[in-house]
Amino acid sequence: MAIVVQKYGGSSVADVDKIRQVADRVAAAKAAGKDVVVVVSAMGDTTDELLALAKKLTDSPSRRELDMLLSAGERISMALLSMALNARGVPAVSFTGSQSGIVTNDAHTNARIVEVRPFRVQDELERGKVVIVAGYQGVSYKREVTTLGRGGSDTTAVALAAALDAEACEIYSDVEGVYTADPRVVPDAHRLGELGYEEMQELAESGAKVLNAQAVEFAKERGIAIYARATRGGEETVIRKLPPRAPGRVVGVASQTGLVSLCARGGDASTVDALLALLDEHEAEGRQFHLEAPDGAGAVSLVLSLENLHDFPRLRRELAARLAGRVSLREAVGAVSAIGAGINARFENLRRTLDVLAAMGAAVLGASTSSFRISVLVEEGVVPDAVRRLHHALVTEGERPRSPAD
Amino acid sequence: MAIVVQKYGGSSVADVDKIRQVADRVAAAKAAGKDVVVVVSAMGDTTDELLALAKKLTDSPSRRELDMLLSAGERISMALLSMALNARGVPAVSFTGSQSGIVTNDAHTNARIVEVRPFRVQDELERGKVVIVAGYQGVSYKREVTTLGRGGSDTTAVALAAALDAEACEIYSDVEGVYTADPRVVPDAHRLGELGYEEMQELAESGAKVLNAQAVEFAKERGIAIYARATRGGEETVIRKLPPRAPGRVVGVASQTGLVSLCARGGDASTVDALLALLDEHEAEGRQFHLEAPDGAGAVSLVLSLENLHDFPRLRRELAARLAGRVSLREAVGAVSAIGAGINARFENLRRTLDVLAAMGAAVLGASTSSFRISVLVEEGVVPDAVRRLHHALVTEGERPRSPAD
Repeated sequence: MAIVVQKYGGSSVADVDKIRQVADRVAAAKAAGKDVVVVVSAMGDTTDELLALAKKLTDSPSRRELDMLLSAGERISMALLSMALNARGVPAVSFTGSQSGIVTNDAHTNARIVEVRPFRVQDELERGKVVIVAGYQGVSYKREVTTLGRGGSDTTAVALAAALDAEACEIYSDVEGVYTADPRVVPDAHRLGELGYEEMQELAESGAKVLNAQAVEFAKERGIAIYARATRGGEETVIRKLPPRAPGRVVGVASQTGLVSLCARGGDASTVDALLALLDEHEAEGRQFHLEAPDGAGAVSLVLSLENLHDFPRLRRELAARLAGRVSLREAVGAVSAIGAGINARFENLRRTLDVLAAMGAAVLGASTSSFRISVLVEEGVVPDAVRRLHHALVTEGERPRSPAD
Repeated sequence: MAIVVQKYGGSSVADVDKIRQVADRVAAAKAAGKDVVVVVSAMGDTTDELLALAKKLTDSPSRRELDMLLSAGERISMALLSMALNARGVPAVSFTGSQSGIVTNDAHTNARIVEVRPFRVQDELERGKVVIVAGYQGVSYKREVTTLGRGGSDTTAVALAAALDAEACEIYSDVEGVYTADPRVVPDAHRLGELGYEEMQELAESGAKVLNAQAVEFAKERGIAIYARATRGGEETVIRKLPPRAPGRVVGVASQTGLVSLCARGGDASTVDALLALLDEHEAEGRQFHLEAPDGAGAVSLVLSLENLHDFPRLRRELAARLAGRVSLREAVGAVSAIGAGINARFENLRRTLDVLAAMGAAVLGASTSSFRISVLVEEGVVPDAVRRLHHALVTEGERPRSPAD
């Protein structure tokens, strides 16, 4: 029978009424003759609340214990949804990430799925049951409970869809699919009907919350189409392999805050080495390492995200103790990114981006490009305005009809 | 019947004897019951010789005329191979890129394939013929002849394999597959039995000549395995989807020379804008644009490759005229890159790389990282030694058995 994997985010299971609505939707899919696997996130802000509790107890919680704590949230929602389904006569069973066969590496709090062995899920589907799986969690080959980092329930859903050879993977949240920018920030933003895998990955890595980047990577590898929909119904965005677009077209603007930039100006080799060693001690994942020394006077910069860095206060203290005066640290940094396949085929989009920021009087702290992305580092406070103006200049203006010749 | 696409590089069709050997190999595949499509490059150094002729005539050849000129090379080799096959009783027919339905965008001298419509190829295969296709060339939607940039014949082969739903794509050259580094430079280098698509792409983009990066991209999208083999027979490397490797493992080291780095130190916005506009006028594709201004004093850097830049002397003159004293240009720059999935999961490999270069006393002109790559800019002259030492430190040492615990 055709298998459908449905994933419901935290806002879709935020309270008992909403869980009942999800149960209705699942029951409808089951009644339509599908085998249904449901992946759930923790209810509402549960994960943030648990994290806040931990931070009240200690600045430096062990990552293993954090995972034990945080993985509890999805166990609550999965059990409740299973009860709601059984109560309305739809046989259902819930499984933790570990029981579902989600095997990860051992990077606690930010693990990556390395294998899916969904034997128990398959057995229960064959018995005619709806299977509810706790998202965002797995088990390492050391048999420890791990979590997958923010948005990890999406990854659980796509990885299961791939392993089960599902006909579709549906991701439900409180928004109707993927927009050209966050509609709460940019009133002009509009829904995208479809989007290529790489574009969605870059949007997600640049801060778009609607889908997780590793989830899209899985979907791309297996050629699985993802349907991003609102739980309440309405329109959708399909993420799948697309034919090439006209180069230079910008599909969306995304942003991130809570970044920290580190800079060793004129940094000698031993400073750089000590900095990198310190970051490795903290298992800090650096993005955009860049060293520049065209005339001997070197500058090293890198950007960290606080999101997956659970012990920034200690890192900051040790940085001050070991590398005072040699490495400067800037907090409250944001990144604004424009995304599109072939966006940098010419430098036009980059020039327009720098123009827009100059016109707003925003300090550009850094900028970099790749084949799919232009990213600019700015102060956190100017991020919303920068997103609005860049969306206008690159997306809205970019969609105006041009001469037909090209 | 099962279709096989075979591609033979310039050294495999360098003279009449070698063309006869290729004909033997093609005839053997045909006799084994396959439908065979052969993609050929120009003979030996034909393309370089044609380019040298053009440069004697003008510093600034039109890109359209360059394409008309350079596409002649493959037409010679395809016709000769077709004659060799027909002479030994194997019915064969040759087609240009345009006749084979290789449709590209209109970026002359560096076009990208956007569509393949191989109807004539299919018709002739059905008639039992071997089809020989001129590699490296196509036709734009404006009906102009285009070429695909260096290594473009690989792309032709993989794109055809995808469009024809071939069972295999075999790339023949004078080396036995893909090595951990160029064996002419690094005596310790060894052949890799298999390699993931992303790793191969990054190796190719970092200068490994054995396969073209866009070709690997096509293969990845369609899930086509590529077999890289020596024309004379022997071992091979298979490029295909692989399960994840242990993070941090370095699969190879590649290098590029002939790079130019541009730097606007303390560059104001108008300088940056003028520089980008000038590069767009020259259709110069920039890699690694990076702007850094954590404390207001900005520095902009970018790297160009001379390889796809057919008019560097004019660009240099105009740069000097328009931006003298504001943008510094450094020629004879090389890049050395280490490749591996998850290479930067920790900073260990980056630290080791910087250590090795410091120990050689090599000036590091720049460095950057991505999830698959560490790239360091150095003076061209030190590239071979840097490749050897990095290969030793990251590949040879990295393969030593470690403690079994991780």
